Amino acid sequence: MIIRVVTSNKVYNLRPSPSFVESESKSPFTIMAAIKVHGSPFSTATARVLATLYEKEVEFEFVPVDMRAGDHKNESFLSFNPFGQVPGFEHGDLKLFESRAITKYVANEYAEKGTELVFGDSKKKAIIGVWMEVEAHQFDPVATKLTWELAAKPAFSMGATDKAVVEENEAKLAKLLDVYECRLAESKYLGCESFTLVDLHHLPGIHYLMGTEIKKLFDSRPHVSAWIADITSRPAWSKVLAMQKQK
Amino acid sequence: MIIRVVTSNKVYNLRPSPSFVESESKSPFTIMAAIKVHGSPFSTATARVLATLYEKEVEFEFVPVDMRAGDHKNESFLSFNPFGQVPGFEHGDLKLFESRAITKYVANEYAEKGTELVFGDSKKKAIIGVWMEVEAHQFDPVATKLTWELAAKPAFSMGATDKAVVEENEAKLAKLLDVYECRLAESKYLGCESFTLVDLHHLPGIHYLMGTEIKKLFDSRPHVSAWIADITSRPAWSKVLAMQKQK
Repeated sequence: MIIRVVTSNKVYNLRPSPSFVESESKSPFTIMAAIKVHGSPFSTATARVLATLYEKEVEFEFVPVDMRAGDHKNESFLSFNPFGQVPGFEHGDLKLFESRAITKYVANEYAEKGTELVFGDSKKKAIIGVWMEVEAHQFDPVATKLTWELAAKPAFSMGATDKAVVEENEAKLAKLLDVYECRLAESKYLGCESFTLVDLHHLPGIHYLMGTEIKKLFDSRPHVSAWIADITSRPAWSKVLAMQKQK
Repeated sequence: MIIRVVTSNKVYNLRPSPSFVESESKSPFTIMAAIKVHGSPFSTATARVLATLYEKEVEFEFVPVDMRAGDHKNESFLSFNPFGQVPGFEHGDLKLFESRAITKYVANEYAEKGTELVFGDSKKKAIIGVWMEVEAHQFDPVATKLTWELAAKPAFSMGATDKAVVEENEAKLAKLLDVYECRLAESKYLGCESFTLVDLHHLPGIHYLMGTEIKKLFDSRPHVSAWIADITSRPAWSKVLAMQKQK
């Protein structure tokens, strides 16, 4: 198993034993990152947490979980997250799961570091909260079903795409994006005038859908399209994609 | 249309014009509540918000939305919430939707009033956040589907119960409640040792399911059963149920 440790300047690929190997200097060393993320960069939930850590410029250690081998259902991981879902997150003796709980913790705990991801007075935060719920309850379930049918099934030869499921969820997404188009006509980002966790939480789902026929739904709405071009070009997100390529 | 205004001491049933009628004194009067909730006490999302306001002992005005008449899909309500879902929430010029965004806003805005619903240091809040996400992503979708099949369909003669859907979601709920049983064996409430928004968010779904055959899943798990007896007996929740009876 290779463990990736990400600091502000370098990425280290480590073999935990018998000796650590630093990818750049090739000399043995020891790094203890306070934060550990257990997961897969291909999982949308893990990618959400990784993007947040990169935005906040917080050092962390990435511990890959081999989901194809079912390691997220093993007893050791279940003791970490009883639902057997990645990512698992550690910060010292604090253990968390559920990606959006983790991103909120990181955004608040490191409020002064990197990109400010949640801010404003209580009313502004409440509106950001509304759009955070919209992503979680309206965007994510639809995006997950479409990604499964149009990206995962063909990529891993997991049976035929269910056209009825695609049709139903494409219609739901189109309606949702009509609301986003109106919102983004009056606000540069979904939560407020600045990039926040709301926009970030959409990134993994959007990334997969932009590689499918669903892209047309985004492209045909000018404000949505500009928003996607903006948020997908953030350096923090590029670092998550780079982790997918290095796997 | 009757408008209910809830203050700390009284409940007023008002007819907005030509004259206001107070249910207790029968004399004309004017009350301007800073907070307005637009919805139906039968909607689980509305009930979640109402329970929070009662816990916080915050005065509010309840504006019924006739969902059977489709008033939540009317243009006036859509301008309030573009997704046409109750509840809508107003606090002065702030307008919110999405029940969990509203409850979090109320809990934080009125932190010093009534029951403390979100508290602790950042780590404690993060763990409360984890269980809040579990309710939203794992409990609520399953509870909603079971309530639809086992309570709503029979009550409103909306076709036969889909046994396959019930079976699938009953199995999911049983697994989830096994995790809850372990959690509640080590923690009095789901989020921490005190009642929080996590527990409150479950109340509307649990209430409906306890009136169906699903009750057996709760009753057969001693810690879950004790937790349900505890949280459903809270005075704030009784006030929400009283609103359902008065409709």
